[in-house]
Amino acid sequence: MNLKMVFNTLGNIMKTEALLLLVPLSVALMYGEKLSVMAFAVTIAIALFVGFAMTLFTKSANRIIYAKEGFAIVALAWVFMSAVGAIPFVINGDIPFYIDAFFETVSGFTTTGASIIPNVELLSKSSLIWRSFAHWVGGMGVLVFVMAFLPSISDRSIHIMRAEMPGPVVGKLVPRARDTAKILYLIYIVMTLVEVVLLSLGEMDLFESFLHAFGSAGTGGFGMKADSLASYSPYSQWIIGIFIMIFGVNFNLYYLILIRRAKVAFKSTELWAYVGVVAASVLLICANLGSLYETFSETVRHAFFQVTSIISTTGYTTVDFNLWPGFSKAILLMLMFMGGCAGSTAGGLKVSRVLLIFKVIGREIKQSLHPRSVNTVRLEGKTVEEKTAIGVCVYFAVYMLCVLVTFIILTLDPVAAGFETNFTASVTCFNNVGPGFAKVGPMGGFSFYSPFSKVILSFAMLFGRLEIYPILLAFFPATWTKRCK
Amino acid sequence: MNLKMVFNTLGNIMKTEALLLLVPLSVALMYGEKLSVMAFAVTIAIALFVGFAMTLFTKSANRIIYAKEGFAIVALAWVFMSAVGAIPFVINGDIPFYIDAFFETVSGFTTTGASIIPNVELLSKSSLIWRSFAHWVGGMGVLVFVMAFLPSISDRSIHIMRAEMPGPVVGKLVPRARDTAKILYLIYIVMTLVEVVLLSLGEMDLFESFLHAFGSAGTGGFGMKADSLASYSPYSQWIIGIFIMIFGVNFNLYYLILIRRAKVAFKSTELWAYVGVVAASVLLICANLGSLYETFSETVRHAFFQVTSIISTTGYTTVDFNLWPGFSKAILLMLMFMGGCAGSTAGGLKVSRVLLIFKVIGREIKQSLHPRSVNTVRLEGKTVEEKTAIGVCVYFAVYMLCVLVTFIILTLDPVAAGFETNFTASVTCFNNVGPGFAKVGPMGGFSFYSPFSKVILSFAMLFGRLEIYPILLAFFPATWTKRCK
Repeated sequence: MNLKMVFNTLGNIMKTEALLLLVPLSVALMYGEKLSVMAFAVTIAIALFVGFAMTLFTKSANRIIYAKEGFAIVALAWVFMSAVGAIPFVINGDIPFYIDAFFETVSGFTTTGASIIPNVELLSKSSLIWRSFAHWVGGMGVLVFVMAFLPSISDRSIHIMRAEMPGPVVGKLVPRARDTAKILYLIYIVMTLVEVVLLSLGEMDLFESFLHAFGSAGTGGFGMKADSLASYSPYSQWIIGIFIMIFGVNFNLYYLILIRRAKVAFKSTELWAYVGVVAASVLLICANLGSLYETFSETVRHAFFQVTSIISTTGYTTVDFNLWPGFSKAILLMLMFMGGCAGSTAGGLKVSRVLLIFKVIGREIKQSLHPRSVNTVRLEGKTVEEKTAIGVCVYFAVYMLCVLVTFIILTLDPVAAGFETNFTASVTCFNNVGPGFAKVGPMGGFSFYSPFSKVILSFAMLFGRLEIYPILLAFFPATWTKRCK
Repeated sequence: MNLKMVFNTLGNIMKTEALLLLVPLSVALMYGEKLSVMAFAVTIAIALFVGFAMTLFTKSANRIIYAKEGFAIVALAWVFMSAVGAIPFVINGDIPFYIDAFFETVSGFTTTGASIIPNVELLSKSSLIWRSFAHWVGGMGVLVFVMAFLPSISDRSIHIMRAEMPGPVVGKLVPRARDTAKILYLIYIVMTLVEVVLLSLGEMDLFESFLHAFGSAGTGGFGMKADSLASYSPYSQWIIGIFIMIFGVNFNLYYLILIRRAKVAFKSTELWAYVGVVAASVLLICANLGSLYETFSETVRHAFFQVTSIISTTGYTTVDFNLWPGFSKAILLMLMFMGGCAGSTAGGLKVSRVLLIFKVIGREIKQSLHPRSVNTVRLEGKTVEEKTAIGVCVYFAVYMLCVLVTFIILTLDPVAAGFETNFTASVTCFNNVGPGFAKVGPMGGFSFYSPFSKVILSFAMLFGRLEIYPILLAFFPATWTKRCK
């Protein structure tokens, strides 16, 4: 393990966080929130101090990194970012207890949107924007951001990208990983700005437009009202509903469109599977809801919004879906597990993984009928490497195991929240969605859990966002000791 | 597809069922249950008629069968057996509706023990023994029974055995599959008789002893009281608790002990994992229950009984575990998924599959740290074929998918039973356990579900007992048309 390099990169991440904290600091200054100005300024100082301390002592670091270092950097970076990012909430008094603030910050960076704040309307504007901005940064990836804009990470940084970018396979768009990161972030920035403009054309002011654009671009889900988006106009709801669906698509496709290869982009199996699942879910839910809402267009709007919000693992809501009939809830639960496309800002298993799993199952069935036949798995017109195909099935097993373990630990909580609450809390945090059912439903929250459960759920969110292995490996001593071959 | 051979074997299965029906017929005669005598006699006549009709027209069948035929025979045999086995309940009036009777019979043969009977104490003795005897026959396998004792199935019957015997790998103890089947059944019969003797030394009469021995040997769970085993003495509860644990062990180990290779048997990793999981679960549940029961020995007895009953997927209970704290329930839920050992009469994923999944996960983690390393998976001192290792992970994915689909369909039921009920109903039926939580808990039952849901749950039990593929393949047209290569 090249520990020097790991801490050198971590130092740069801390400095980057100081930079990112300028956003809420400016908001605090703009709105004259004195306590928050102090809170963010102090946190920036802490981040800079830690950052410079780390880089100063690791200047001579060997720049070569392997898979191991990639995992370690990503795991530590996310934990450190959250640990430091939680500080301002405690200082400005918006979230007095540190563990609560840590939970909220992890929920921000991992784009989960699960909240322990009982009354979000009492938060300061700077705290609100910091929560949502964390979604935006975490959506595309903190390290991808650093790679794109800071010249500090070595050329072998594809290992870092692999560890941070979601999906079964992470490829480079262009030969250099750094350029790939830059392209992805530019697409991301432009799309976010377009959403800001469109939202500000409705009833939202510029602050609200930015806040919700950050929250939807990162497919996070932090808003500024207790009823999420229920009190906004159908126009705003449609804009956000469509944008979260767009942000749940693989960004590589947008790149293909940019370089005028739209035809290739529109041939993507994953894209059509994603669109198909959304359409089918909306249809089924509309049929199941019947005449729950006054007009048919209202039914369609709520069904569409909730479906795109859940499959993209955003978690904004326009109605309390916890009151929906069991079948609609079951479909939403299934969508929580599935998540958006690989290479998007969405969480969950990812559509391409689900597709691969179905294809591997299909092959297994063929082979049990014809034991001597040999079949390869194909996706997006290419033969999938056997290693990848197996890896996806193994990932699914680890993933279900993690959900189960989180659920079991939650049942130890003294509040005894009940089966539905604990189970969906585990599922929603692990898949970075936000709301679950019952007590953790859209109108509920996570404040009632014990500090211990909150820490567990924070790690569930980190496990989910980083797709398990980086955080899991951090718990293995072998990761830290043995040299990589 | 060698359809002639498939129907020839099916015919023999029907004749075998006629033979098996002599057991409840004798009980009906013994206790003078006139209506039941008629019911079972008529059903025997139907089974014989169908059986002879099938074998008469397929006399010239080519005896060669492949994997395909193995799956088809097993799938059809189990559906036919249940369809015919349900008839007496309707005729003698114990279960007036055919779909209810079908559910109950499937629950019997698949050794699930889930019941739609509101008041089991009102059943006739012959119906009671038929339900429990179905457990006994289904536990070791109907086709394995036919193979062992009837000279009608060809020598390539290992394909049938593979399709019916649970576990990731089915091996032969001795060169001929038929002899293997015979050995397994003899061990099974002797162990059942030992349990009958031990039970009859307690407060149970001979009828009760046989009934509960059948129910526990098959790890089924049908009893004769509404509170299952709660009103029996601690002696009987301990005997049954220990025996269901024993019947959850791979029968190959008993064969090894028989041929004086006990040392090899006691080296089995699966055995120790199974014992370890039982011990750990009992400990954790005892700690979690605290002083719920008056004495410590009572706590241990209830914890041990419920743990062995659930892990062996039997489903007998001595207390209403639905009233236990959430953590104990979560452990039981985990045990429902895990199930007993491969090659036992238990359901669930099987301990060896869970072990293999963990080992494959371990390898994946190693490989992500050292991408160029090559590692094989080993179990029971042998290298596991790559195909088997992948197959287990794929099986896990199909399995979770089936549980999810069953759950989603149940949410369409007009009774709207709620999340916990529907989810655990799906889990408990699929794993052939019997009781779930909430409305389908130990003191509840499945009678409130709509006929449609009952059919779905019946198929869930069949999918679970036959480990998915045979029944799943029966829905593929390719199974029935193309010739096997």
